[in-house]
Amino acid sequence: MLHKFNDATPVEIDEAMQIAGEASQAYRKFSLKQRADFMKAIAHDLENADELLISTAMEETHLPAGRLQSEKARTVFQLNSYAEACEKGDWMQVSIDTEDQKRNPPKPGIRKMMIPIGPVVVFGSSNFPFAYSTAGGDTACAFAAGCAVVVKAHPAHSNTSQLVADLIMKAAEKCNMPKGIFTHLHGAGIETGKQLVLHPETKAVGFTGSFAGGKQLYDWGNQRKAPIPVFAEMGSVNPVFLLPGKLKTDHDEIAGMYAVSVTLGVGQFCTKPGLIIALESDELNKFIATLAQKIKEISPGPMLHPGITKAFNEKRQKALEQNGVKEVAESGIIAKGNEGLPTIATVSAQIFLENSLLHEEVFGPYSLIIQCKNNDELLAVAKALEGQLTATLMATVDDMNQHESLVDAIKEICGRLIYNGVPTGVEVCLSMQHGGPFPATTDSRFTSVGADGIKRFVRPLAFQNWPDELLPDELKDGNPLKIWRTINAEIRPPQL
Amino acid sequence: MLHKFNDATPVEIDEAMQIAGEASQAYRKFSLKQRADFMKAIAHDLENADELLISTAMEETHLPAGRLQSEKARTVFQLNSYAEACEKGDWMQVSIDTEDQKRNPPKPGIRKMMIPIGPVVVFGSSNFPFAYSTAGGDTACAFAAGCAVVVKAHPAHSNTSQLVADLIMKAAEKCNMPKGIFTHLHGAGIETGKQLVLHPETKAVGFTGSFAGGKQLYDWGNQRKAPIPVFAEMGSVNPVFLLPGKLKTDHDEIAGMYAVSVTLGVGQFCTKPGLIIALESDELNKFIATLAQKIKEISPGPMLHPGITKAFNEKRQKALEQNGVKEVAESGIIAKGNEGLPTIATVSAQIFLENSLLHEEVFGPYSLIIQCKNNDELLAVAKALEGQLTATLMATVDDMNQHESLVDAIKEICGRLIYNGVPTGVEVCLSMQHGGPFPATTDSRFTSVGADGIKRFVRPLAFQNWPDELLPDELKDGNPLKIWRTINAEIRPPQL
Repeated sequence: MLHKFNDATPVEIDEAMQIAGEASQAYRKFSLKQRADFMKAIAHDLENADELLISTAMEETHLPAGRLQSEKARTVFQLNSYAEACEKGDWMQVSIDTEDQKRNPPKPGIRKMMIPIGPVVVFGSSNFPFAYSTAGGDTACAFAAGCAVVVKAHPAHSNTSQLVADLIMKAAEKCNMPKGIFTHLHGAGIETGKQLVLHPETKAVGFTGSFAGGKQLYDWGNQRKAPIPVFAEMGSVNPVFLLPGKLKTDHDEIAGMYAVSVTLGVGQFCTKPGLIIALESDELNKFIATLAQKIKEISPGPMLHPGITKAFNEKRQKALEQNGVKEVAESGIIAKGNEGLPTIATVSAQIFLENSLLHEEVFGPYSLIIQCKNNDELLAVAKALEGQLTATLMATVDDMNQHESLVDAIKEICGRLIYNGVPTGVEVCLSMQHGGPFPATTDSRFTSVGADGIKRFVRPLAFQNWPDELLPDELKDGNPLKIWRTINAEIRPPQL
Repeated sequence: MLHKFNDATPVEIDEAMQIAGEASQAYRKFSLKQRADFMKAIAHDLENADELLISTAMEETHLPAGRLQSEKARTVFQLNSYAEACEKGDWMQVSIDTEDQKRNPPKPGIRKMMIPIGPVVVFGSSNFPFAYSTAGGDTACAFAAGCAVVVKAHPAHSNTSQLVADLIMKAAEKCNMPKGIFTHLHGAGIETGKQLVLHPETKAVGFTGSFAGGKQLYDWGNQRKAPIPVFAEMGSVNPVFLLPGKLKTDHDEIAGMYAVSVTLGVGQFCTKPGLIIALESDELNKFIATLAQKIKEISPGPMLHPGITKAFNEKRQKALEQNGVKEVAESGIIAKGNEGLPTIATVSAQIFLENSLLHEEVFGPYSLIIQCKNNDELLAVAKALEGQLTATLMATVDDMNQHESLVDAIKEICGRLIYNGVPTGVEVCLSMQHGGPFPATTDSRFTSVGADGIKRFVRPLAFQNWPDELLPDELKDGNPLKIWRTINAEIRPPQL
């Protein structure tokens, strides 16, 4: 039985931010181990949550049990691995310059570390009810950084969100966290989000969703009296470049990989390949024919919620209606009302370059193949694209060496560059970059996946001339926390 | 003979940004050693610049030769030390996660490094004609990061700026840098800056100056179709808290230190202590008396330019006219037309808390002593202050332990926290944090002094599944550049 929650009132929102401000001041003094233990407690409880959590998520998101279970497992892994990173402390980038009284003038002793930025507001995403929502990556990073969190549940899975929130609250109590360390609010309208971003106690925002939504939060963040960073991940078309040498030998294999990648999770991933770009050739025709055959065989699947199905149908239709766009194939199985129909279309590079509507993301199982007459058009397409989360090169080593300018241009538009693979599937590890130049995200300098995501919610503070006994443990001479530190510009292991 | 330069035309600005865009694409492929050699060549030529440079700067800024010579030496040191940091490569934060084919699903190999963000526009500052202007910290950091630079000269020292620019251009030619690696433009009006920030090729901005100027650039940067980071350092009042135990024994010594710090360089430092906060006491009265005596003995000095003298006189006058503000002392020597008059005033905490005008920076040799009736007022003042570059605690260890909430509150408002010292004098080293919460700067997460300033002009790029031969040297298996890297989340020295 799904419950309908009321929107948080302005008074509730203000209270949530006030106690988050107080909690942040207490929590920032908690040790790295205490923060990590709290995160691990949430992970443990999430891992052992009863059946109701998955069944509720299935009912709200229409995602299959298997996908939800693996997303939950990923969320548990995120919490545990960011907890480990938190305790290890590399993200604090501790740097110590020792004093030198003999220098003229004497050099003061200066020690720098990262400190928490303050209360973080997290907006749950529609397509990841666990990994990018209530106890997801933004929340985990903020807790590791030492910040209190206020989550606004995504209205499309508010019951799932509430169950996860209850579990976080229980873990907070068990770990003796300060009151206000975590608050969960509901709000279907724009006003809840606006009030949260504009509240003076809010010090940073995490968001995953549409361009319109993310850009609005970003603008509000910048228009405050004291602006704050808004980390919005706003989607991507994830261009895939098929280079001729690779296509020649592997066109069938690539078609198979991409039929799966385009339609995985009914195309509802921010890393879904939405553009496939190649030179006109017989092999490209063969690739298209195989891809078309495979797409016809893939069943439509239910989408996350009616709003997303409607948007997909409209954007798909509009894209297909554009002058010069030709539908190549769609699923041979008729889509029911809430389902997304796997679809592949094609267009010439010339027309693509002239029509910016074709550059936009169609969120769902749709991809557009761009056919280029020559290398100049290939390069022109790469240079015409906006910022992307990912770009992919399907290429032999020879292809890469023969298309140096193209590879250089592609590096400038993305955060992650895949070689002979698919962009779907975002590995949770320290080297992951999930973020890219605007409009993929509002800040290409940070990642929302991997423990480096903690760096979004901290800022440096330098201590000059402080006596050892007054310094935080992170900066003390004896290095009691045994963390890696840079001393006089040299990286030093914990034992030194 | 000072030359009067014409403002750059819109066509010249567009051309400068276009060639900067092209140069950035070439320069980003230059090795770390090539970048470092270029920076060292500039440093060498600046160090050996002929007499005309200092005499021109003296004529334009009215700063004394000694100060200008030491600022030039600091600029040379910045270029050399950031060049060393550039070559060492720690700032690239290389992280490698190796693939694991045995895992289910297989883990892809992912390697991440920082890449240059693209052309950087630098606005010269009025108060640092060398260290924060043409070949200053922003320019040095951008070159280290791999970015082309376009400098807009500060109109108050355009001849000095031109001489330094000529020297950079010569070094660029000597080092075979791409055309457009550095462009120097003049522009006294607001339009030059606006066009530079809004140009699509501009990818980041560095600025040191007034709040009005910096905030305007920041807003333009955010309002672009594709927003860009604007790093504006916009001033600070640098509060100094005198705690009772320390004041009891050292009031005379502190008064001596602060008479110098408030008036150093005619108070024209962004780290000048503009507020001194203490509990009412006999010792505070003694401190004030000694400080007053010393201020009376300090001569007024010529300020940077007539606009700054005018602003100082007006702001000083307005501050002194506020209800409850009492002038304590001013220099006993009459100020000439372009000179700034050393001045100390005092006010009660209660009035300070009610009058936000008193929280604003008075750029010049002026400081306000805030007298608090009790610890609650002391804490209230700390909490009422806006973001600061620095804060200072003059305190014994006992004082610190007895004022824990106060120390906690001060940590939240500043980027650098000095213990028993003065905020003037910004050490150039890796542990320095020169930046603080808004409105001290537009982005508290970065520093504009020290080699960590390079991080302002880069963003991460992850390579997934790339063959070793196609990876940049920074990421290759053999670690040919011999840099520190993190491998599978463990920091590893170059030889591993």
